[in-house]
Amino acid sequence: MKHQTDFKIAADFISSNDVFLVTTHQAPDGDAIGCSLGFAEMLKVLRKEFCISIEGGLPEKYDFLPDNIEIIDPLQGDIGRKFTHLAVLDAGSYNRIGQSIKLADDNPIILNIDHHPSNDGFGEVSYVDCEASSVSEIIFHLAEYMKIPVGKDMASYLYMGIMTDTGRFRFSNTTSKTFRTCAELLECGADPAYITEHIYFDLPRSYIEALGKSLYNLEYYGNGLFALMEYLEDKEIEDAEGLIDYALGVRGVRAAAFIRLLKDGRFKVSLRARDSLDVSKIAETYDGGGHTKAAGFRFRGSLSELKTNLTETILARLE
Amino acid sequence: MKHQTDFKIAADFISSNDVFLVTTHQAPDGDAIGCSLGFAEMLKVLRKEFCISIEGGLPEKYDFLPDNIEIIDPLQGDIGRKFTHLAVLDAGSYNRIGQSIKLADDNPIILNIDHHPSNDGFGEVSYVDCEASSVSEIIFHLAEYMKIPVGKDMASYLYMGIMTDTGRFRFSNTTSKTFRTCAELLECGADPAYITEHIYFDLPRSYIEALGKSLYNLEYYGNGLFALMEYLEDKEIEDAEGLIDYALGVRGVRAAAFIRLLKDGRFKVSLRARDSLDVSKIAETYDGGGHTKAAGFRFRGSLSELKTNLTETILARLE
Repeated sequence: MKHQTDFKIAADFISSNDVFLVTTHQAPDGDAIGCSLGFAEMLKVLRKEFCISIEGGLPEKYDFLPDNIEIIDPLQGDIGRKFTHLAVLDAGSYNRIGQSIKLADDNPIILNIDHHPSNDGFGEVSYVDCEASSVSEIIFHLAEYMKIPVGKDMASYLYMGIMTDTGRFRFSNTTSKTFRTCAELLECGADPAYITEHIYFDLPRSYIEALGKSLYNLEYYGNGLFALMEYLEDKEIEDAEGLIDYALGVRGVRAAAFIRLLKDGRFKVSLRARDSLDVSKIAETYDGGGHTKAAGFRFRGSLSELKTNLTETILARLE
Repeated sequence: MKHQTDFKIAADFISSNDVFLVTTHQAPDGDAIGCSLGFAEMLKVLRKEFCISIEGGLPEKYDFLPDNIEIIDPLQGDIGRKFTHLAVLDAGSYNRIGQSIKLADDNPIILNIDHHPSNDGFGEVSYVDCEASSVSEIIFHLAEYMKIPVGKDMASYLYMGIMTDTGRFRFSNTTSKTFRTCAELLECGADPAYITEHIYFDLPRSYIEALGKSLYNLEYYGNGLFALMEYLEDKEIEDAEGLIDYALGVRGVRAAAFIRLLKDGRFKVSLRARDSLDVSKIAETYDGGGHTKAAGFRFRGSLSELKTNLTETILARLE
């Protein structure tokens, strides 16, 4: 669909209303959190009343952020209030906000700001810029458009959002505009060393243990084209999904799988690929799905059969 | 010492001479390689004659870079030629170029471009900007000053240099100027995704094995304040030094040590610290040395005594 990228309509929506619910997608990542907090800082400067709602609240790893904005977790019960005007950020469709919907009126008036190409254009005002690295990048330019000064806290939130959504300037959404935005955020007070240390170099011991164990047992097939990683302990690991990046990052590896054990006895299998292989096709043969370079499925049955079968399927498509 | 940062003198040196030896420090890192190749591209545009010499040649991990510039390894024998004019980049003193000195006249005329505060100001022309993230950043601005167009290859070399010397925009040398320079390099054709994948996500299998093994056996002392990592196999691991970052990156850890076995039976110990601890002081008690946050020493004797003694010494200073 054709998306709209005119700041004027978004700015008018903000200027002409007084009370907002700011919210974002379920299972929030760095950008979801960064842009929500950054947007709230903007509302503070404009002396608007607002409330941020994020399903599940602020994940522990973001505890290092300035904490002078309260975040409501709708799973923790009813706050006894409903909002008419919503700013829904970084969500491709309205239902992605999950239980935060409980804080909205039945027929809310919505400002939708996003960068996902799949955004369905929901809301009275929809601003979707698919060229932007992140919604945090958009919020910075919206603030600039509205001539709202960006303080140190706001700059820190937005820098964190950009950094995490570009995979630390790794993904192809990293553009010259992204870097220019970061330059300006540093001038507004964001501290890249401090933020990077907290996001990437403050890992729970359980994560490091799981990383050690799964790399120690990494298996290679097809002359090293396919790497198979497993972590079968019955432990909840924060950000465990990210471990598969290490397997895919081995020289020569073109596809990687990561098998974990679920509480119900099934296996959760994540698939990743470099270059031409489409792993969503492989996931589909196991009733799963995903994107071409990142997909997954769940499986009930014998681990050794799963491994043999998956390895054969992947190698057949790789060679 | 007072350093000089006037591009005019450096630019005059380049303009008024015709043949250059371009060289950098021994054990070259990403910036040493990036700025040398970037500088050579500049000389190409100016139609100067040049030769790049790097002791040990180009390390394998940089094989992905455009390869239309030959790099001489002085350890591979005499090329039967000596140079009068040298551009020595990213080296704090002249002797840091190692065996590349064999390609220089006895009394060479030197342009020294660097960003290390410890630079001793060697050379007829010395340009040392300690505020620059990297020499690659300096070379970009020198090219800009000299109105030399920056092509895709040059932009890629310099982006790689900046990215690696800032630890992927992690260290405190990452400034708004660094990000602005990156923005311009992307506009000149550098591809951040491609370069990042090759530098950080193309790791040798031996490195991943060593990482798995050493994380699997990671030991914690003093309530998790000190992490002790060891890798005692008799294998040469590329970039093994970097493994200690994982130990220091564990939540709560304030100091980390990494013990490896040397071919001569001694142990090589690397030390790292966050915040206030000065590990160079600890290294000195073992006749080693280094910086406050990164130091090391070599030790001959019993491994268990080393571990006990080191742990006690570090915990005494941490608590």
